[in-house]
Amino acid sequence: MANKAFDVVVIGAGPGGYIAAIRAAQLGFSVACVEKWTNPAGKMVLGGTCLNVGCIPSKALLASSEEFEKIGHHLADHGITTSDVKIDIAKMLSRKQGIVDKMTGGIEFLFKKNKITWLKGHGTLVAKSDGGYQIDVKGDETESVTAKNVIIATGSKARHLPGMPVDNKLISDNEGALSFDTVPKKLGVIGAGVIGLELGSVWRRLGAEVTVLEAMPEFLAAADAGVAKEAAKQFKKQGLDINVGVKVGEVKTGKDNVTVNYTDKDGKEHTLEVDRLIVSVGRVPNTDDLGLGNIGLATDERGFIPVDDHCRTKLPNVYAIGDVVRGPMLAHKAEDEGVLVAEVIAGQKPHIDYNCIPWVIYTSPEIAWVGKTEQQLKAEGREFKPGQFSFAANGRALGMGSSDGFVKVLADAKTDEILGVHVIGLNASDLIAEAVVAMEFKAASEDIGRICHPHPSLSEVMREAALDVEKRALNK
Amino acid sequence: MANKAFDVVVIGAGPGGYIAAIRAAQLGFSVACVEKWTNPAGKMVLGGTCLNVGCIPSKALLASSEEFEKIGHHLADHGITTSDVKIDIAKMLSRKQGIVDKMTGGIEFLFKKNKITWLKGHGTLVAKSDGGYQIDVKGDETESVTAKNVIIATGSKARHLPGMPVDNKLISDNEGALSFDTVPKKLGVIGAGVIGLELGSVWRRLGAEVTVLEAMPEFLAAADAGVAKEAAKQFKKQGLDINVGVKVGEVKTGKDNVTVNYTDKDGKEHTLEVDRLIVSVGRVPNTDDLGLGNIGLATDERGFIPVDDHCRTKLPNVYAIGDVVRGPMLAHKAEDEGVLVAEVIAGQKPHIDYNCIPWVIYTSPEIAWVGKTEQQLKAEGREFKPGQFSFAANGRALGMGSSDGFVKVLADAKTDEILGVHVIGLNASDLIAEAVVAMEFKAASEDIGRICHPHPSLSEVMREAALDVEKRALNK
Repeated sequence: MANKAFDVVVIGAGPGGYIAAIRAAQLGFSVACVEKWTNPAGKMVLGGTCLNVGCIPSKALLASSEEFEKIGHHLADHGITTSDVKIDIAKMLSRKQGIVDKMTGGIEFLFKKNKITWLKGHGTLVAKSDGGYQIDVKGDETESVTAKNVIIATGSKARHLPGMPVDNKLISDNEGALSFDTVPKKLGVIGAGVIGLELGSVWRRLGAEVTVLEAMPEFLAAADAGVAKEAAKQFKKQGLDINVGVKVGEVKTGKDNVTVNYTDKDGKEHTLEVDRLIVSVGRVPNTDDLGLGNIGLATDERGFIPVDDHCRTKLPNVYAIGDVVRGPMLAHKAEDEGVLVAEVIAGQKPHIDYNCIPWVIYTSPEIAWVGKTEQQLKAEGREFKPGQFSFAANGRALGMGSSDGFVKVLADAKTDEILGVHVIGLNASDLIAEAVVAMEFKAASEDIGRICHPHPSLSEVMREAALDVEKRALNK
Repeated sequence: MANKAFDVVVIGAGPGGYIAAIRAAQLGFSVACVEKWTNPAGKMVLGGTCLNVGCIPSKALLASSEEFEKIGHHLADHGITTSDVKIDIAKMLSRKQGIVDKMTGGIEFLFKKNKITWLKGHGTLVAKSDGGYQIDVKGDETESVTAKNVIIATGSKARHLPGMPVDNKLISDNEGALSFDTVPKKLGVIGAGVIGLELGSVWRRLGAEVTVLEAMPEFLAAADAGVAKEAAKQFKKQGLDINVGVKVGEVKTGKDNVTVNYTDKDGKEHTLEVDRLIVSVGRVPNTDDLGLGNIGLATDERGFIPVDDHCRTKLPNVYAIGDVVRGPMLAHKAEDEGVLVAEVIAGQKPHIDYNCIPWVIYTSPEIAWVGKTEQQLKAEGREFKPGQFSFAANGRALGMGSSDGFVKVLADAKTDEILGVHVIGLNASDLIAEAVVAMEFKAASEDIGRICHPHPSLSEVMREAALDVEKRALNK
């Protein structure tokens, strides 16, 4: 019997894969999507890391922990008093899981609506075949399908370190750290990246004493240096103990604790004893068990699949997107690549400007940026003018009781084109959208400065920062 | 002795006036600004209605009341429990006043920094004079100054109704309603406009039983009809009792209560007894005590000063901006006119596209829009396509526990140019900024749909609504 044949088979149903599948279906293709993820209740689910153990559950916990911290520490000046403030961790986790279930169920609905076949199991590329590629899907049974076009969207997994065995009890990666059943009294975090900072913040707000150990000499090296400096200041004020330039030595697990030996940036030796340890030292692409070799594909030395600007691999009709290819490991970057590939297969001419992909770190205050940092522009020797404005001078931010941080706009010194926008402050993740639109339209800083912004709103800070490029902010 | 002479004299230091003064000073002019506002502590202050008894204090109270309501009603599903939740109204009001003081003090600092002379007192246009216009400022003493250019920015005051004498105790306008010393058990609001809804919401959240009486047959007639419908649904769910098509009859004040007789839309008579009544039935321009006639200027029959697109009156070098001229009574519209006039005086060629001035209503959920409503486009006979997407399908909104509302994008049926964007939902006041930038660049809905938006963020709802114009939203 012939294999089931599809125009497009997507391997992986994370944000890149499921969006690619939907866009391909919208464009009239017959589409299947391979996914094997099983949720804590033992049910197979769509959505991948992002929806199940990434962006979505972490944002739910950030919200819960922010509310908890606010009640405890930031309502007195409103005149609001309470007593007996408690948080039921099980209930908080069940709310989080409820949101995850709603979102993953939503994708299942979208698959049905768009007539996308969900192939439940682990997908392996087996061979080139007549009319495409053969993919075996190993679930309860093994099914073989033929794909005219293949989109590899298998995502990434947490990098684990030798000597730090992740059991998601004492030593956790992102997955375990989203589900601690109690608030650890002392929490260690290896790696001051996005995930370490977000999850470290969650448990700190709920009462943990948090120590972060980062190997790199600089804090948040990818962010604009001014933003990173402000972030370090804010996080320290909040009680996060962040140590950079650290060399982690032996890690020992006891019955209910973990001992971390490390050398600080000055070479002094320390012993840190914690109840729980989060290891968040980056992520590695899921490309090792895909059968790439069977069809003549290979990864680079770091496990990524080489692709061109349109996510084409070296094989005809085989594409790869998201965390398995070059570029930032961001859900929305994967989504945009998913749309792009579906449109390329349909013969359209889509394009992604990777310089206009925004970055967000969901700490408090949030951090978001798009385009180049000040240090990147300096390294490129590009002449630019900076403009900056603080939330502390914004009436809405003061009203909301959250006036830390600033917006920084970097514009070309000659043409005034916006080259980068950096936000640290309340709702940065939404404020950055305006800057992305402006940069896609090659706006000058003067454009943002001349466009009307509602008063009072946080977005006024963006306008003032843009005006400040020519030193004509109105409220500075 | 000759009068003190200035290149520019601005009458009024609200958001329009103080910004005009700063921009004029930036452009090298000698500038004075006339302002007589006295704060509750008896100190003369800058900032006008907006900073003293408008936008800024209301947003402070909205934040306090939202926090209070959240603790009482919306934290249980996070697993957070509390007891003895109380709010000290005096402390809440003092926080509000602290923010107002900080902001008004900020303008005083900016005036000094920009070498702007603050003329303290009531300004009256006296006569045309050599080199400009004579303005008398009556404060502790009367001072005469000469202005080469005059900018009238005297703002507006609450409209009062015959038979409803505002004492700011039992019957209040915006000013009194920002300072109730206790939470009224029963609160009546005459007028379901922006101010009535915002202040009604504040006191409802703090425990008042609120009845709103609106004369117009439609609720929020200025907003997109779909948004108004959603708003009515949400406000009703929150417990605001809104009645449209009402005819208010006799209003009687007792010792500590107010009785309002009214006829409902079906002609049935009612008697409403409340502890406090807010009258919020629009605002009238402050043009009656300005001496306009002394220099040969007159207002129209509604009290507005006629101006052209560049805020020029019929007299050379006399300009008027903000609430005293045509167009919406919005602080940011006044600000932009302030900048425009200063630049016109400097010989520049500025321009305001009034279609790109955003509107915001700071209820919960917030409402914001820019451009045309669906009913306006229909009335114009313009063919358009609508796209809509709900916050209920957005992971960030779910995480934040606030997923009511939607974004609606209206685009030209032929060119796809965005004609209007309407948001009802969390942080609408900031989300709208992206839409304003897009419309200023004459973006198509496809542009917003193709521009990368961070995941997870509320701004993704904007993108999906834009994609939905061509029925290709990815998550719908």
